[in-house]
Amino acid sequence: MPARELAIGFDADDTLWHNENVFATHHARYCELLSRYHDAATVERVLLETELRNLELYGYGVKSFTLSAIETAIHLSSGRIAAAEIQHLLDLGRAMLAHPVELLDGAADTLAALATAGAHRLLLITKGDLRDQHGKLARSGLADHFHHVEVLPEKNVPAYAALLRRQGIAPENFLMVGNSLKSDILPVLALGGAGALVPYPILWAHERTDETPRAPGRFFELKSLHDLPALVTRWAATPAYGEGRK
Amino acid sequence: MPARELAIGFDADDTLWHNENVFATHHARYCELLSRYHDAATVERVLLETELRNLELYGYGVKSFTLSAIETAIHLSSGRIAAAEIQHLLDLGRAMLAHPVELLDGAADTLAALATAGAHRLLLITKGDLRDQHGKLARSGLADHFHHVEVLPEKNVPAYAALLRRQGIAPENFLMVGNSLKSDILPVLALGGAGALVPYPILWAHERTDETPRAPGRFFELKSLHDLPALVTRWAATPAYGEGRK
Repeated sequence: MPARELAIGFDADDTLWHNENVFATHHARYCELLSRYHDAATVERVLLETELRNLELYGYGVKSFTLSAIETAIHLSSGRIAAAEIQHLLDLGRAMLAHPVELLDGAADTLAALATAGAHRLLLITKGDLRDQHGKLARSGLADHFHHVEVLPEKNVPAYAALLRRQGIAPENFLMVGNSLKSDILPVLALGGAGALVPYPILWAHERTDETPRAPGRFFELKSLHDLPALVTRWAATPAYGEGRK
Repeated sequence: MPARELAIGFDADDTLWHNENVFATHHARYCELLSRYHDAATVERVLLETELRNLELYGYGVKSFTLSAIETAIHLSSGRIAAAEIQHLLDLGRAMLAHPVELLDGAADTLAALATAGAHRLLLITKGDLRDQHGKLARSGLADHFHHVEVLPEKNVPAYAALLRRQGIAPENFLMVGNSLKSDILPVLALGGAGALVPYPILWAHERTDETPRAPGRFFELKSLHDLPALVTRWAATPAYGEGRK
């Protein structure tokens, strides 16, 4: 049986390049800056509460984070924080946006190999800030490997369904690769696609989920992107769920 | 000769709904807030300088504006601005994001008429903040009229060229409707498409251009969106440039 032509979606932050490590560094400096007002645990807790409360209005990304960090600093210092310290928060945000893109182990080789083989369509599917994500993709050197790039306001079932429809991709021929069960894997499994989880050492609290994937034969967990080409070959040779039942 | 099937692109802010009037209100309050440090003209000038300096890193939209407004306030007050006043700037930014979408005259009727006629593909093509633009589109009640929605990091010749290629649209069958010569019209004319300018009373300084459209028969200026359906009918009945020369 000939292998199927698949569409393979890649998450970007913490899947292709480091991201949470940059946030972690920033969080540590932030807690230090506010240490004369509150202990680190309180600062982290209130910052996360502020971020989640603002999510609907601000969306994801560094600019949203910076605005929430300023709001939290004003609140936790009871308005005593100095303008110079707020300027410091703006500078930290700017440093995050200008941070060099550091590729994860296996990202460059794996994408080059899959793109060169040419058997499958490669898509970059991320959320966050439009400008920032396009900028990081340009600086990553990976842009040429992708047939399509999509920055979504949210990565949930309706968003993936609309994307697959727009791109003319049948869910059973779609494999999504990412580090977040909640954003990259579960919605795709729900649509009948496949998911390959490649965990990153740090996961933002908002991405945590207690749900476990229930999709035998369609959910895979990889140690690194180095293991992806073998999985793709295997998965492409497997009859799609619908075909298998015929 | 049968009419051509066109793709019609619509800018969003200040083309379909009011936007600069919200910014103008915010600017006035901002100048008032900083009036004990500097006169309004200085505040406006330095704010614009800050916005333009940050554009490459921040991109467009309310969150970028809010961050630049905070930076400018710290700078112009020589660090004397109080945390409570910065909180006020955060609140103003939030109010802008939550501002009701007020449709421009003719937007609802014209889009409904063109969508119902079904002769042409309608696209929403905007720049700015991903979350904010999708939110405004959802609240506008216009979303169902569009075959495709695209929020671009920048509206220039390469961005339009890539979009038309992705959507399989020949430039000679593309008409872009918008309020900015610089962002909506000139890049599309440069690609061989057509442009319909519908000016809005306020134009952000960054959108100003001294360039004038040089594309006889492909550039139109309309008083309001009410005049668009007639133009579309006329333009669809006109042979495309390439065809006309055959």
